[in-house]
Amino acid sequence: MDYYVSPLQNLIDEFRRLPGIGNKTAQRLAYHLLNLPDEKAFRFADAIVEAKKKITYCKTCQNFSDSEQCTVCASPARDKGVICVVENPKDVVQMEKTNEFKGVYHILHGAISPMDNIGPDDIRIKELMSRITGGEVREVIMATNPNLEGETTAMYISKLIKPFGIKVTRIAHGVPVGGELEFADEITLARALQGRIEL
Amino acid sequence: MDYYVSPLQNLIDEFRRLPGIGNKTAQRLAYHLLNLPDEKAFRFADAIVEAKKKITYCKTCQNFSDSEQCTVCASPARDKGVICVVENPKDVVQMEKTNEFKGVYHILHGAISPMDNIGPDDIRIKELMSRITGGEVREVIMATNPNLEGETTAMYISKLIKPFGIKVTRIAHGVPVGGELEFADEITLARALQGRIEL
Repeated sequence: MDYYVSPLQNLIDEFRRLPGIGNKTAQRLAYHLLNLPDEKAFRFADAIVEAKKKITYCKTCQNFSDSEQCTVCASPARDKGVICVVENPKDVVQMEKTNEFKGVYHILHGAISPMDNIGPDDIRIKELMSRITGGEVREVIMATNPNLEGETTAMYISKLIKPFGIKVTRIAHGVPVGGELEFADEITLARALQGRIEL
Repeated sequence: MDYYVSPLQNLIDEFRRLPGIGNKTAQRLAYHLLNLPDEKAFRFADAIVEAKKKITYCKTCQNFSDSEQCTVCASPARDKGVICVVENPKDVVQMEKTNEFKGVYHILHGAISPMDNIGPDDIRIKELMSRITGGEVREVIMATNPNLEGETTAMYISKLIKPFGIKVTRIAHGVPVGGELEFADEITLARALQGRIEL
């Protein structure tokens, strides 16, 4: 039996498709939106459309950006000689919060994972290599997640880069092994950055 | 410092305004939407706009509806002589799931709560009274939440209705006192409905 009118059922279904949102929460959020004034609900819908339309990838570091170059890559204050390689855009936010890092980033958008059929060509390694060959880069810091996929990716990339005579380092295992970068606190991440070792 | 480009920050902010969504979850959901194919993200935005535009209130029972009368009120199979009064549209869904109730509903959209400055005129009691005076109604079942506000509302409405010679009942306290209807299981709710007592 249908308990909801179809536009409401649709909205509940859309919420339920989001990660970590169950039945009850989807229902609660949909009712919340229905009870909002029109302009607030429409503003939410607009935020989704705007974000999808305006946000592309920085042509240099591959981070989300609303212009050709992201603010980090475009900043003259950032050291273009040191590239910190991370798996996801949210890892950049975590790194920035440490206030320890003055270089630039490269976002892979994933990690090598044979189990999930994700190989080196499925993440943005080619884009990283084209930055390396410019000659300006002195060090590449591998800040992929401290789990199997992240370690594999770090090792793979370090082997690609070393022939160019560029220093490749790995953030120290101050970050708890087996976890994900996203959940590390600022201090742990800062320690991990300071204690990085050459690969 | 701004860690996010502004369309992304907007989207995160919109998610954070939803009830029960914290910082990390808002960030996670926003990134999830950014990573979706355009058409899926736009479908989500559309679902919000559609729901807001198409859904109004049933002119009889005040439930959410996409037509003048909701499916329950429009159904010839439902007994128009018995009205079950609930606080919120989601309570109707819970009631329907019991398969015990063949009458119709009235949704108050809230409960009397002097603490929150919500008086009898702020919820849809007037609309209920205009249904009562038609002469067709034999019984009104008060299924407001079994907490202070719900009990107050039930008592208030029963005093208004009794002069019309209509039976007013209250669902039995099979539902845990102090809780909210939304979290009751079907069996408990069915028991509560069967054991209703006259007020």
